[in-house]
Amino acid sequence: MAQFSRRQMIAGSLSAAALAPVCHLTPARAAAPQIGKQAPGFYRYRHGDFEVTAVTDGAIRQPLADSYVVNASRDQVNAALGAMHLERDRIFAPLTPVVINTGTRLVVIDTGLGPAAFEQSKGAGGQFHTNLRAAGIDAAAVDAVVLSHLHRDHVGGLLTKDGHPAFPNAEIFVPAADWRFWSDDGNLTRMTAGSIPEINFRNNKQVFASLKNRVTLYDADKEVQPGILSVPAYGHTPGHTAHLVTSGNAKVLLQADLTAFSATLFVANPGWHVFFDMDGAAAESSRRRIYDMAASEKLLVQGYHLPFPSLGQIERQGSAYRFVPATWNSSL
Amino acid sequence: MAQFSRRQMIAGSLSAAALAPVCHLTPARAAAPQIGKQAPGFYRYRHGDFEVTAVTDGAIRQPLADSYVVNASRDQVNAALGAMHLERDRIFAPLTPVVINTGTRLVVIDTGLGPAAFEQSKGAGGQFHTNLRAAGIDAAAVDAVVLSHLHRDHVGGLLTKDGHPAFPNAEIFVPAADWRFWSDDGNLTRMTAGSIPEINFRNNKQVFASLKNRVTLYDADKEVQPGILSVPAYGHTPGHTAHLVTSGNAKVLLQADLTAFSATLFVANPGWHVFFDMDGAAAESSRRRIYDMAASEKLLVQGYHLPFPSLGQIERQGSAYRFVPATWNSSL
Repeated sequence: MAQFSRRQMIAGSLSAAALAPVCHLTPARAAAPQIGKQAPGFYRYRHGDFEVTAVTDGAIRQPLADSYVVNASRDQVNAALGAMHLERDRIFAPLTPVVINTGTRLVVIDTGLGPAAFEQSKGAGGQFHTNLRAAGIDAAAVDAVVLSHLHRDHVGGLLTKDGHPAFPNAEIFVPAADWRFWSDDGNLTRMTAGSIPEINFRNNKQVFASLKNRVTLYDADKEVQPGILSVPAYGHTPGHTAHLVTSGNAKVLLQADLTAFSATLFVANPGWHVFFDMDGAAAESSRRRIYDMAASEKLLVQGYHLPFPSLGQIERQGSAYRFVPATWNSSL
Repeated sequence: MAQFSRRQMIAGSLSAAALAPVCHLTPARAAAPQIGKQAPGFYRYRHGDFEVTAVTDGAIRQPLADSYVVNASRDQVNAALGAMHLERDRIFAPLTPVVINTGTRLVVIDTGLGPAAFEQSKGAGGQFHTNLRAAGIDAAAVDAVVLSHLHRDHVGGLLTKDGHPAFPNAEIFVPAADWRFWSDDGNLTRMTAGSIPEINFRNNKQVFASLKNRVTLYDADKEVQPGILSVPAYGHTPGHTAHLVTSGNAKVLLQADLTAFSATLFVANPGWHVFFDMDGAAAESSRRRIYDMAASEKLLVQGYHLPFPSLGQIERQGSAYRFVPATWNSSL
């Protein structure tokens, strides 16, 4: 001990004498290369007897369109982005499907943008299947895929790059009201060519035509899979559905697109309507009803477009809300 | 296309007819096992020409001691924990060392609890070296380890389980004021046996006696390594030091223990003094001075005990502060 004090204090003192500058060393070894690769994008938590894994599909960074919020000006949106320390003139959209292992059933909720988007976005989006493998989950072991609604960024991961079913043994569950809307060719005739609804319409036709899985429709307020209850959240699309996942005393609300791209923007401004909400007023009404419930009951909320790992609490803040992320747990 | 509509709509309709209950299937395959393992604990970001990797050492969950905050009651602390959606009667303490690759130098800032803690905590803490490997970083390639102060949870990862230097080729940089304090045996005689300072004192003796690396002391306001400036933040310990990391226009403040275990608790209550601050008033003064600067300059802050990945912004909120986590980016 005494030896430590003397030897080290001398070493310390000697070095201290030569302190300015201290960064005078030339490394004898080659510099370690920068790695340029993000961590595998998943986050796991125990939920009663269930194991939940939030698996990111990545995130898309888009220019802010003038009409992005139909009832707020570009300046108002930019001011809100700035106040939240988010980049102005950009919409940053994370996507986070969820995998639930109930102990007897392996269930995927939504599937990301799909492999074509991976190439288009240079790997920023369409990561779901890569991250699923990194999370140790075999797509062939998935029993059910539950879709919240039939938008491309939720449906895209149903197929592989080659157009084969990405979950070969899964039954696919689709909200009945969405199915009715997206499979009625009469609706297609009322859509503007090149519009987001039209792109989604054609995408749904193509995906479900290729899909060999059994498709089952589900209604609101049903137990779609054990412990997974469908919660109507209409407006974003005609059949847009949230899910309440319960195991024992543990509850988590999968909010899907109750708030959409740059979700925290719409948490803080729940009266703002994003241009691709098919019925903005209904979407706002669903948002307020479900967030009021989540805030009152202090529910854990898992949000498809909320910042990864997309898990936290919704707090009331006047007539708006605030998202408080859960603290990351480094073990289970 | 027409074929799709018909075939699938019939399938959908047929299934829809049998909707209640839909969860009637018995899986033909064995249930997929739950995995029980968290994602590798690192998060990477570009920072000017630098690459920064936050690498978690895990997190320790401790009972809340009555005297944990010396100037607030247990009830006040529990009320604050509850308001922040944190568990009452517990302190949850994440630990997040940081690795900076400047392009020419590979620098580690703080090192976690060390391998003994990994066993004691059953893997909850002491994860740093495991996660470092998962992040693709070779400890032998590290040029410098910069310590913010000489507390056990920052020093522990300097040695392997067998007591060998964990960073065999690194020079170790220690704040001069901390070195003076922890190497003065006179200070040991004034410490209560079994107290946290005494445990840290004996731990420092043991670690630095075993360490074969060159130890260099550094003062405040020095460029300890290229682009890494030491910022005095005294109080928590006599030499406790934050670091401002600059590359081009990018700046991030590594705040170290400016707020300690359950760091967000002290962000929201900056006037509260944790019992292991060696000078609570000085620590508070450092906290307010540096947080005021961080809020005014909208600095990114990387906080050792803030929730992983421990990166975000500090906002002023009356005479207190709020931590706003940065949005996770799933690519670089």
